[in-house]
Amino acid sequence: MYSTTHQIANTLKQRRSRLAEQFPHPAVLWSGWPQPRNFAANAYPFRASSHFLYFAGLPIEGAAIRLEAGTLTLYMDDPTPSAVLWHGVMPTRQQVATELGAEAAFPLSELAAQAKGAATIGLVDEGGRSRQSQILSRAVVPAAQSTGGDRVLVQAIVSLRLEHDAGAIAQLRAAAAVTVAAHKAGMAATRTATHESQVRAAMEQVILAHNQVPAYSSIVTVHGEVLHNNHYHHALQPGDLLLADVGAESPLGWAADVTRTWPVSGRFSSSQRALYEIVLAAHDRCIEMAKPGVEYRELHLAAAGAIAAGLVDLGILKGDPDELVNQDAHALFFPHGVGHLLGLDVHDMEDVGDWAGYAEGRTRSDRFGLGYLRLDRPLQAGMVVTIEPGFYQVPALLRDPQQRDRYQSVVNWNRLEEFASVRGIRIEDDVLITPTGCEVLTAALPTHPADIEALVTESDATAGRSPLPH
Amino acid sequence: MYSTTHQIANTLKQRRSRLAEQFPHPAVLWSGWPQPRNFAANAYPFRASSHFLYFAGLPIEGAAIRLEAGTLTLYMDDPTPSAVLWHGVMPTRQQVATELGAEAAFPLSELAAQAKGAATIGLVDEGGRSRQSQILSRAVVPAAQSTGGDRVLVQAIVSLRLEHDAGAIAQLRAAAAVTVAAHKAGMAATRTATHESQVRAAMEQVILAHNQVPAYSSIVTVHGEVLHNNHYHHALQPGDLLLADVGAESPLGWAADVTRTWPVSGRFSSSQRALYEIVLAAHDRCIEMAKPGVEYRELHLAAAGAIAAGLVDLGILKGDPDELVNQDAHALFFPHGVGHLLGLDVHDMEDVGDWAGYAEGRTRSDRFGLGYLRLDRPLQAGMVVTIEPGFYQVPALLRDPQQRDRYQSVVNWNRLEEFASVRGIRIEDDVLITPTGCEVLTAALPTHPADIEALVTESDATAGRSPLPH
Repeated sequence: MYSTTHQIANTLKQRRSRLAEQFPHPAVLWSGWPQPRNFAANAYPFRASSHFLYFAGLPIEGAAIRLEAGTLTLYMDDPTPSAVLWHGVMPTRQQVATELGAEAAFPLSELAAQAKGAATIGLVDEGGRSRQSQILSRAVVPAAQSTGGDRVLVQAIVSLRLEHDAGAIAQLRAAAAVTVAAHKAGMAATRTATHESQVRAAMEQVILAHNQVPAYSSIVTVHGEVLHNNHYHHALQPGDLLLADVGAESPLGWAADVTRTWPVSGRFSSSQRALYEIVLAAHDRCIEMAKPGVEYRELHLAAAGAIAAGLVDLGILKGDPDELVNQDAHALFFPHGVGHLLGLDVHDMEDVGDWAGYAEGRTRSDRFGLGYLRLDRPLQAGMVVTIEPGFYQVPALLRDPQQRDRYQSVVNWNRLEEFASVRGIRIEDDVLITPTGCEVLTAALPTHPADIEALVTESDATAGRSPLPH
Repeated sequence: MYSTTHQIANTLKQRRSRLAEQFPHPAVLWSGWPQPRNFAANAYPFRASSHFLYFAGLPIEGAAIRLEAGTLTLYMDDPTPSAVLWHGVMPTRQQVATELGAEAAFPLSELAAQAKGAATIGLVDEGGRSRQSQILSRAVVPAAQSTGGDRVLVQAIVSLRLEHDAGAIAQLRAAAAVTVAAHKAGMAATRTATHESQVRAAMEQVILAHNQVPAYSSIVTVHGEVLHNNHYHHALQPGDLLLADVGAESPLGWAADVTRTWPVSGRFSSSQRALYEIVLAAHDRCIEMAKPGVEYRELHLAAAGAIAAGLVDLGILKGDPDELVNQDAHALFFPHGVGHLLGLDVHDMEDVGDWAGYAEGRTRSDRFGLGYLRLDRPLQAGMVVTIEPGFYQVPALLRDPQQRDRYQSVVNWNRLEEFASVRGIRIEDDVLITPTGCEVLTAALPTHPADIEALVTESDATAGRSPLPH
């Protein structure tokens, strides 16, 4: 299971050296323990902590590493005889230590004595933090609440993980490639599917067939106006748009995050196409702008401006687009941020709260049109971000008397009704910032309406089915 | 999302009345809270606690019910405005209360005052138990460690959940039907698959397409000798047997658990067929015997006897089959129990330890051939159990010097080597105990070698693809 990791051993070593430069103290990072689903032996699929994966590479259960001055000490228990019966021959502590390039390796019981004074990061689950607290004999809090040396460690790791190295980018490309194939399969499956669940199944089949897993709960819905919709029971109607936000996670834990919106019938109606083109213009504008030094917030505002301008052109909004964005009128239809960091986590490092997404000294805005922005930093080479503008008709927003009152004069409500069938559109790609601009890692998946229509309608029934070498 | 539940409202009411007969005190049951995967907003798919589902039916997040004398009080919070934006319009507390037939409904904050003196059952995750403890102002321990009134409540619920009612059986049939379709799709996919992951993907696609989910981590492997093998990276070789232990969970949380073993080439070799027929004989013998009043342990021993007899016939074991079973020689090749309870959990009620699987006063045997038996009760009508004998060549067992020494004289090691290519075979069905015998809920999936071969090799490429109405 660990054979893919040999090629990144040097990468891991470099990451540990870079940490030592930024954080010259001992640090202990934990992979975590499986979390029970409905009983202990029926656990959710294990996902090692991203901070551990970043420096140790392997998704080992119940392990910890101690990092100091670029050296790594591994703590894990050898498999028990009954574990071998149920789970097969597993690598021994010494084998894992060799693979990780560890300087030393001990049973987990040795960690307590050797971790005195080390900084650490809390696991996301309370059961995990409870074990950490017990072993370290001190309270271990959620990462976003870290204080003192633990917080300094968080900030050092954030600064490293913001800028992806070649090893990380290779993994992100692997997840992106499978994700592109999954979306193509979803479009092809729409021709014969009667329900959302069948399209979701066709997409996740591609991910699983490549021995990856979904990086997050897939969204595959004709109700795209529900931003995080994890139900799949609706029937598909010919006039519907289907919004699919589905991404794969590579075997070493790196994520893709991609959204496409396509017509169930294979042909956008004129009102669907008009709004789709507005979202696409916002998407393309952000990608044109993305390069080192540009503030991500400016991309968000550019997307908001493009959407406002497009809605003015369509007669849905009235006024000057810039002024409409200043009033947050765009957020009636585009109520979320234009994207976020991407890496080992689909919202990378969100376990540390806004310490990753927001530059030091910055905090969330209380503006309706900015408060959901997850990322407010200048872009830098090696960063990977999503670009995901959208247009939604959320009844809870558009029927809210307070919002209707506030935006009474800038919305042409009658004109808007002509677009009632368009409930939600989002177009999302994964974008690597390069020294001179950016590269769309998911560019192999078309965004233009005609290309999307071709993928949904083309007669070759095998289109999109596992086109990657295994 | 809750529309499937209307038909079982009466069932739920009857369950609550039956509990009141057995447990005439107040009881509080909890659905639980989503568990984070790598950060809080990226949770594992929510699975409500089975004890809650049994009486409340609906998989509501963060809810509790108070049961007393057949009445139900619901505690849950109404969705917040931002939850509506991200997750869509969700049923209000009052709507859920109506659907559940609750006598009253309150915000969760009211529970503390109204739960004084009530018995309860600990959730499986430590984070959940920590919230329970806080709300009840007392330590809530894992269910298997319950004491006092909590333990009495566990025992009352176990006695109800052992005997499935018509509502439960309808759900179990729905999960079984989708599972049968998934296995047929897996067999069909083997024709073109090059890796285990592709067969797994084809099977889970069927489950997801029917808007169900896997009830447990699928096992799809050419290394069936690893009993709980959750890796899917091996290439398929023409001489391999592929073991697939895959089951669906219905939308209301009821599980299926089915294993088939088939030849990658579509044709069993003679040594594969010989061992397969032995496992099948054990499987069939258990099903012949299953009826109310029969001890499940007797089924296990009958399976062990059939396997021992078959291996004697093949010349792998030497001696009298009954005597071999008394010596646990069968367990060299069949080291697990012949099955377990099935219901809302795939190992039903395993969260309460052996209080469900073992009749009062019985404890696990320390015999090599019995210690892994998960169920030791007389069968009763309404019980659903799995029947899953197997034959495995586990290197950790067969190469263990102690075992080789102990069984030196009863194993023909040279003869065994002729079967070296057969690493693992299991045949598993889900069996409802009826008043006069039993019914195999998964009987639509063949077990006989010729039928299996036909499903793997048949030329109709659409065989097994979503044959169920949606």
